[in-house]
Amino acid sequence: MKKKAKERIILGIDPGTTITGYGIIKISGRDPELMTIGSIDLSVFEDHFLKIKHIFERTVGIIEEYHPDELAIEAPFYGKNVQSMLKLGRAQGAAIAAALSRSVPVFEYAPRKIKMSITGRGSASKEQVASMLMKILNFNKLEVRLDATDGLAAALCHFYQTNNPVSEKNFNSWKDYISKNPGRLKK
Amino acid sequence: MKKKAKERIILGIDPGTTITGYGIIKISGRDPELMTIGSIDLSVFEDHFLKIKHIFERTVGIIEEYHPDELAIEAPFYGKNVQSMLKLGRAQGAAIAAALSRSVPVFEYAPRKIKMSITGRGSASKEQVASMLMKILNFNKLEVRLDATDGLAAALCHFYQTNNPVSEKNFNSWKDYISKNPGRLKK
Repeated sequence: MKKKAKERIILGIDPGTTITGYGIIKISGRDPELMTIGSIDLSVFEDHFLKIKHIFERTVGIIEEYHPDELAIEAPFYGKNVQSMLKLGRAQGAAIAAALSRSVPVFEYAPRKIKMSITGRGSASKEQVASMLMKILNFNKLEVRLDATDGLAAALCHFYQTNNPVSEKNFNSWKDYISKNPGRLKK
Repeated sequence: MKKKAKERIILGIDPGTTITGYGIIKISGRDPELMTIGSIDLSVFEDHFLKIKHIFERTVGIIEEYHPDELAIEAPFYGKNVQSMLKLGRAQGAAIAAALSRSVPVFEYAPRKIKMSITGRGSASKEQVASMLMKILNFNKLEVRLDATDGLAAALCHFYQTNNPVSEKNFNSWKDYISKNPGRLKK
């Protein structure tokens, strides 16, 4: 896929050793458009290292196909236990290494920050985030697995964080922000 | 560096985001020989992602220079907190991805297992492990930083685990094992 001049492409990934979700948005005009969304099913691999290898290789493959300018990853800072965090860290490390080895800069966002950025509420459910993504990016629920939307949400969150000419801090709430920026939300 | 036929080369890595230690052993005859030992200083990088990038790139560089057949990594299963385990996991993930992207299979060993394998005691100190490595592989303390010896210890542990014709379980202790296998320890 060839990239047009002035286009900005953001890859979002939610790394995990069972499912790694990803989504890509393209910004050529004012509003972001959905390029693709998908999930990498790692449950088929019993061996932990095969999962890591697959995350690395698929991430490289996605980068070579879509040429993203940036990678945004969802990165929880708290977990159930140290063992699960070590495994999650390895999955993240493989995705991060894949991007950086292709000179794609990486940005990380906490889940709460992503939810806040997309829905205006840090405690929003997965379904609420997915529903808002579908409205903003005009796609149908039936096309995607819910697992994949967290990756896409990271991409969109990164776009909002870096492309926003007006700081969100100037608004009392996300609703307030939207009411003052109606063009940001597609009806 | 060109590899001779029938040579087996093992790279050992102890990934960390401050120091990543590594060591390489070559087995062409009965006993392992030291090829190299070193450490990657990551404290110079403030940015976490630059550390991950550097671990990945240096690991790839070491693999391309020495052509190891296997990678052994020291992988703690317990840590102080989830946050430090996530960072450690990322460092490990970058090293693992580097090896697997070059088709080098990866094996992991808990620190206790490595210490046990090298010194006969799972609770041995870093200094005791280093001292034993120097005896077995004939090198001088002055040549290396102590940080690097954990990587080398992982490599030697992997060699013992995979190359041992007689199970260590048949012996009452490591001393017992050595007394029955005098060739395994260089004087």
